[in-house]
Amino acid sequence: MPDYDVKDLSLAPQGKLRIEWAEKNMPVLRLIRERFTKEKPLKGVRVGCCLHVTTETANLMDSLKSGGAELALCASNPLSTQDDVAAWLAKDLKIGIYAKRGEDNKTYYKHIDAVLALKPSVTIDDGADLVSALHQSGNSGMAAGVWGGLEETTTGVIRLRAMAKEGVLKFPMVAINDSQTKHFFDNRYGTGQSTIDGILRATNHLLAGSKVVIIGYGWCGRGVAVRARGMGADVIVCEIEPVKAIEAVMDGYRVMPLAQAAKEGDLFITLTGNLAVIRKEHFLKMKDGAVVANSGHFNVEIDIEALEKLSSSKRKVRHEVEEYLLKDGRRIHLLGEGRLINLAAAEGHPAMVMDMSFANQALGVEFIVKNRGKLPLGVQALPEKIDKEIARLKLKSMGIKIDTLTPAQRKYLSEWTMGT
Amino acid sequence: MPDYDVKDLSLAPQGKLRIEWAEKNMPVLRLIRERFTKEKPLKGVRVGCCLHVTTETANLMDSLKSGGAELALCASNPLSTQDDVAAWLAKDLKIGIYAKRGEDNKTYYKHIDAVLALKPSVTIDDGADLVSALHQSGNSGMAAGVWGGLEETTTGVIRLRAMAKEGVLKFPMVAINDSQTKHFFDNRYGTGQSTIDGILRATNHLLAGSKVVIIGYGWCGRGVAVRARGMGADVIVCEIEPVKAIEAVMDGYRVMPLAQAAKEGDLFITLTGNLAVIRKEHFLKMKDGAVVANSGHFNVEIDIEALEKLSSSKRKVRHEVEEYLLKDGRRIHLLGEGRLINLAAAEGHPAMVMDMSFANQALGVEFIVKNRGKLPLGVQALPEKIDKEIARLKLKSMGIKIDTLTPAQRKYLSEWTMGT
Amino acid sequence: MPDYDVKDLSLAPQGKLRIEWAEKNMPVLRLIRERFTKEKPLKGVRVGCCLHVTTETANLMDSLKSGGAELALCASNPLSTQDDVAAWLAKDLKIGIYAKRGEDNKTYYKHIDAVLALKPSVTIDDGADLVSALHQSGNSGMAAGVWGGLEETTTGVIRLRAMAKEGVLKFPMVAINDSQTKHFFDNRYGTGQSTIDGILRATNHLLAGSKVVIIGYGWCGRGVAVRARGMGADVIVCEIEPVKAIEAVMDGYRVMPLAQAAKEGDLFITLTGNLAVIRKEHFLKMKDGAVVANSGHFNVEIDIEALEKLSSSKRKVRHEVEEYLLKDGRRIHLLGEGRLINLAAAEGHPAMVMDMSFANQALGVEFIVKNRGKLPLGVQALPEKIDKEIARLKLKSMGIKIDTLTPAQRKYLSEWTMGT
Amino acid sequence: MPDYDVKDLSLAPQGKLRIEWAEKNMPVLRLIRERFTKEKPLKGVRVGCCLHVTTETANLMDSLKSGGAELALCASNPLSTQDDVAAWLAKDLKIGIYAKRGEDNKTYYKHIDAVLALKPSVTIDDGADLVSALHQSGNSGMAAGVWGGLEETTTGVIRLRAMAKEGVLKFPMVAINDSQTKHFFDNRYGTGQSTIDGILRATNHLLAGSKVVIIGYGWCGRGVAVRARGMGADVIVCEIEPVKAIEAVMDGYRVMPLAQAAKEGDLFITLTGNLAVIRKEHFLKMKDGAVVANSGHFNVEIDIEALEKLSSSKRKVRHEVEEYLLKDGRRIHLLGEGRLINLAAAEGHPAMVMDMSFANQALGVEFIVKNRGKLPLGVQALPEKIDKEIARLKLKSMGIKIDTLTPAQRKYLSEWTMGT
Repeated sequence: MPDYDVKDLSLAPQGKLRIEWAEKNMPVLRLIRERFTKEKPLKGVRVGCCLHVTTETANLMDSLKSGGAELALCASNPLSTQDDVAAWLAKDLKIGIYAKRGEDNKTYYKHIDAVLALKPSVTIDDGADLVSALHQSGNSGMAAGVWGGLEETTTGVIRLRAMAKEGVLKFPMVAINDSQTKHFFDNRYGTGQSTIDGILRATNHLLAGSKVVIIGYGWCGRGVAVRARGMGADVIVCEIEPVKAIEAVMDGYRVMPLAQAAKEGDLFITLTGNLAVIRKEHFLKMKDGAVVANSGHFNVEIDIEALEKLSSSKRKVRHEVEEYLLKDGRRIHLLGEGRLINLAAAEGHPAMVMDMSFANQALGVEFIVKNRGKLPLGVQALPEKIDKEIARLKLKSMGIKIDTLTPAQRKYLSEWTMGT
Repeated sequence: MPDYDVKDLSLAPQGKLRIEWAEKNMPVLRLIRERFTKEKPLKGVRVGCCLHVTTETANLMDSLKSGGAELALCASNPLSTQDDVAAWLAKDLKIGIYAKRGEDNKTYYKHIDAVLALKPSVTIDDGADLVSALHQSGNSGMAAGVWGGLEETTTGVIRLRAMAKEGVLKFPMVAINDSQTKHFFDNRYGTGQSTIDGILRATNHLLAGSKVVIIGYGWCGRGVAVRARGMGADVIVCEIEPVKAIEAVMDGYRVMPLAQAAKEGDLFITLTGNLAVIRKEHFLKMKDGAVVANSGHFNVEIDIEALEKLSSSKRKVRHEVEEYLLKDGRRIHLLGEGRLINLAAAEGHPAMVMDMSFANQALGVEFIVKNRGKLPLGVQALPEKIDKEIARLKLKSMGIKIDTLTPAQRKYLSEWTMGT
Repeated sequence: MPDYDVKDLSLAPQGKLRIEWAEKNMPVLRLIRERFTKEKPLKGVRVGCCLHVTTETANLMDSLKSGGAELALCASNPLSTQDDVAAWLAKDLKIGIYAKRGEDNKTYYKHIDAVLALKPSVTIDDGADLVSALHQSGNSGMAAGVWGGLEETTTGVIRLRAMAKEGVLKFPMVAINDSQTKHFFDNRYGTGQSTIDGILRATNHLLAGSKVVIIGYGWCGRGVAVRARGMGADVIVCEIEPVKAIEAVMDGYRVMPLAQAAKEGDLFITLTGNLAVIRKEHFLKMKDGAVVANSGHFNVEIDIEALEKLSSSKRKVRHEVEEYLLKDGRRIHLLGEGRLINLAAAEGHPAMVMDMSFANQALGVEFIVKNRGKLPLGVQALPEKIDKEIARLKLKSMGIKIDTLTPAQRKYLSEWTMGT
Repeated sequence: MPDYDVKDLSLAPQGKLRIEWAEKNMPVLRLIRERFTKEKPLKGVRVGCCLHVTTETANLMDSLKSGGAELALCASNPLSTQDDVAAWLAKDLKIGIYAKRGEDNKTYYKHIDAVLALKPSVTIDDGADLVSALHQSGNSGMAAGVWGGLEETTTGVIRLRAMAKEGVLKFPMVAINDSQTKHFFDNRYGTGQSTIDGILRATNHLLAGSKVVIIGYGWCGRGVAVRARGMGADVIVCEIEPVKAIEAVMDGYRVMPLAQAAKEGDLFITLTGNLAVIRKEHFLKMKDGAVVANSGHFNVEIDIEALEKLSSSKRKVRHEVEEYLLKDGRRIHLLGEGRLINLAAAEGHPAMVMDMSFANQALGVEFIVKNRGKLPLGVQALPEKIDKEIARLKLKSMGIKIDTLTPAQRKYLSEWTMGT
């Protein structure tokens, strides 16, 4: 058993059951694992991972190990670790696992360092904290040994593109988020459902008739918006991009600046990938009892410091609900300390959707290994062929058949002379 | 402090926070409590209650006590009690409370007896177990002292009407469920959301793309159906009433007999008020991994005994998920032991909707007290005036204004000569 | 060929094709017609009808005539007559038909008199104009000869109940609208779709992103509201009943007084059964270019006179669109002269839904004939048995099977002792 | 007045009213026209256009002419011309207009030749028929004089890319369809609504409870699917791309091969851009009374020839409905002769959405003129800056304000060091 740092090893049996539960809904990853077990394409490859430590991640780790990889994993968020899963990873899968739910920032970065100690050939990131650490002083030599890295999230990809633009990125990165079988599904259907789930677990708030303000109408935002409406909410959308804003309008939502929505909303959800989206000026306008949650990657979307300054006191009124008493007497309820609510208060994306995301990760590691030394610097997507193959496997696992082009149709699509 | 039987008195402070959380979303009940506190209309009235012991019920108890009532309360379901709430009711509100989550059937009925020992003048039921017990041998004299009773659920009202039809009902009953501000809301929006909530907490199952079979298209069933679809599910409806069946068709759902739906469904939810709705013949056809839940009042809707007989073993794989291994190798997952899933795995209806239901209960007790001796035997609704007043207060609490008839319109509605 | 008054007999062949088109989607009425043809239960019965002269009505007339009835029919709205259908009724079915699209009010009432000249034993109404005329001076003796009447609409039933309350109603009335297979379907799905259809044909207005104000949240209003939202509109609801208003809120719509909605709306639709619902005070607040339509029975819901007074000129800018130029320079567009837009600009309810409504009418005439002299004065529904039978036939025609109660379930529903 | 070929000049006044009606909902194009009128950026530029001759196109022509362009326009589909609009273009706008609704194929191509006779410097296409003709023998010299062309549709862009791939494309093309303010809106919201509209006008078919089969889940298909469901239909999706197929599944639709859907569907709609999508093998499985429509660009998606061969006779039963009597006695109803139904039976996309598409066209012509000689061969999108500007103008015209990035946020998005 390699080194590890988890909360309580005795939770492993409970973690095992839950990991198996997830596994049932990850048929594509299962097929990949079966092949990896036979072919061992990752034999001896050191993979350093920084991911939410959930039951689905455990299945990814299992698949990579079955392929022959040597693994170390730390949490990509201090609040998202499921301690029973961490226990199972240490005790049963026997990988280097460094994650404790609720760890402080110092521990969080110590755990990243523990993963870096593996001297990874391939990195897997969810938010780019590992790659970022790897590029910072103190780890200067290490990047040379990395063949390539994988990044799961929109937020992380934005960071990596900034690094590439600045010319500091030292090895090739694959943006898993750019796979269609990732961002179309994970972000929309996964974040969509699990954000609603997290908020209901945290608050038991009736959505029907509530005014829900969705801030950010990207794939994640629209997934949450359509589900909030599907549960009976009156949804308001805030955006900065004009095209997305008109889309939201034509999807039937009201669109307005947050400064105006702040007065109307009962429930606020940020999904922007940006910082200080809900600020002092907005808190000042909210109704007594307003509920504020974040479902974006980092806990910077809500300016908690500003909220603290406006408040005379705060207290915990439910698991994951902090009540701030403002100096003017109003109360604002912050969920999950502003960390992404689907992992803080629920269990993250359902396995059925992570199946595709993590199939991309598993095949992505293999892709980097196979193309060692051949990939350009910069941020690229997985080849479309891999993306489509995952979709095909997923449909098959669901027992769904689709049409195929006839020869005449295939020909027609390549011609231009045949018109009206 | 009267007699009580609860799991752990030390949970009272946690219960208190959660009860306050609910209270914020119960503005109508709050207005009633404020009036009751001043007017004491229930002074000295003994009210025997058999209700789900939740944070909303605690607020109802508080309101009735504020009106001067003497109270005893037991659980209306062995699995629905929130032990922290029970603790608060014993320790802080100091009423006779007899409820422990997971109590066995013997304890359940012993607790009903403990409530009957109060010799109630008014009863409040959720499923009619208290009134039923009160009418059975051994309690023969007690009914004479009861001025009237209140019943919360569709299921209970069906039982009471059966009693009335058989001529055994011994005192007047008010069917709270018949109030528009109850069954239009509680059943549709309350059960609708909390059933989805309970299933997500129990399973973390992705609804998008899942085939969800809703059995029973009454108010509860349609509340769940529209939300399941709103979360991305492909919903199939099973019904026995032809009119409801066509409604489901025209609402866009597929309608078929359960024997056929059993082969397609990923997730089955019963909401019928009937027994053995999912039976051996259906289990035999289900896919490996099918999930089965009940959201009807009693745990008789799923024929668990039949499932046991078909199985070679069972094991608990998550909180509230029992995996049955069938002799043919398929696995079927039963949630919450077949008890209503919104209370077994989630927290029951949100306070915002229970506000109206329990406003009906509070005003219903007052109505029985005021009309003592004047109400006819049988099952009746609350006067429409009370129903509308609750709706008006609710709108007011939400800050919503509506139109009123002009004198000309009022006149027009009473005339018949004015046509084309 | 009896007497008739139609616009152009030569349109009969076109009418025939369209009537056959409707017939294909009226399987329940077809089954009834087949039985009527054999049994002739209406032999010699004089049926006076005042209905929208549409392809579905033509099929009803055909069915009644097949049952042996002698028929006269006038329009129930001056703008709703389909002249090709009227031609077919005169030329091919050879019944007394008095209806011309766009007839003036005088002709409208002359046509009612022509129907009354039949001295009907049974009446069929859509808005109660025929029964109302029959009760007014000049027709005093005629009521004595009427065995009973049938009324199709909510509006008509309100009028009839007013007559009954006032004690002036002289024969028994059957409220077809009270059948579940009528008002649950015709009003919600029929008016729902055909109102949207009429508005699109009249305006080609993009619903996605438009603010649509629905005035009246009865069955018709909620049918339109859910479809407008389903087409991408942002829907606002105005109501006078508090319970319906909260339902609208919890269904996710914004609810506000019309005086406030008037400022926001792009498109206004009245469905109230009341008069002067949109008035001067509302027109004064509307945006330039606002579109106003009525889908309630009578053209009194929009106060057109007030609009005329506010305007300096008007002109017809499209079929069924009148542009009013207000003195302040704003333009308001009135559709279909304020008459019910689904018949003024589209073709009324689709045959598939009228199938059930008119099955009720056909069986309703038979019911009155069979129970001649036995029915109480006042307004009553058809027996539930007939209602359910229609639903059963409809499901059968759609090839849909449903579940039936097991003996154990039937027993359970009648028992009260079996509880938790 | 230049040469023209239209059906009836006397329809011009009616066309004028309808063109004004559209204009009210095209505020972005209006702003562009105002600028063009002042700046005359298209002075003397010959623009040859092949577009659906609708009220929105008339407004585009007006704008281009206001910018100084010399214009010739023919129809891009024989069935989509609105003759009153054509009359206005000839009589009032005085441009070369060659279009008659229902023209035969020979006339259709003669009209294209008439446009080519203008020797255009810039072309505008909707389906690429003009550019295709321009590249074919007989017009060989003409391409040299063309600075660039614009293409409106997905279908046309596919053709152009095939030409570019084959190396035959002779001048630069701008794919208007690739603008976000075009394909996100026009295809989804425009085709979405107008397809439903066309089908309702053609059939008056009740969507609630109908099984609607959507073939092709691109932007157009998903626009129609969500609206069909919003009107109460049970929607089935057929696809050939696995990623889109899973999206359809997770959006809650059933996905299956058309061969299977053919047995279930009541209504079939093709939106694929491909040929012979509904073929003999599918017609053979359809239910009696099935309705078949196309909303893709060309009338090749339904194999009408195959349908003819299966049939013993056909007849027109409604405007735009042809009933085919199959030799086995079943009837299949083909709408609008298989041409795109939103233009054959309704009025095409509402002005409010065409506003953005045609703003792209107007600014696209200006873009080509400004960049004459500088654009690379091949197919390219308009610069993102133009796309966003259109979105911004559209929002402004709707009175909608959105948020903007704070300086801190702008900085954050370009940084990578700030993580958890």
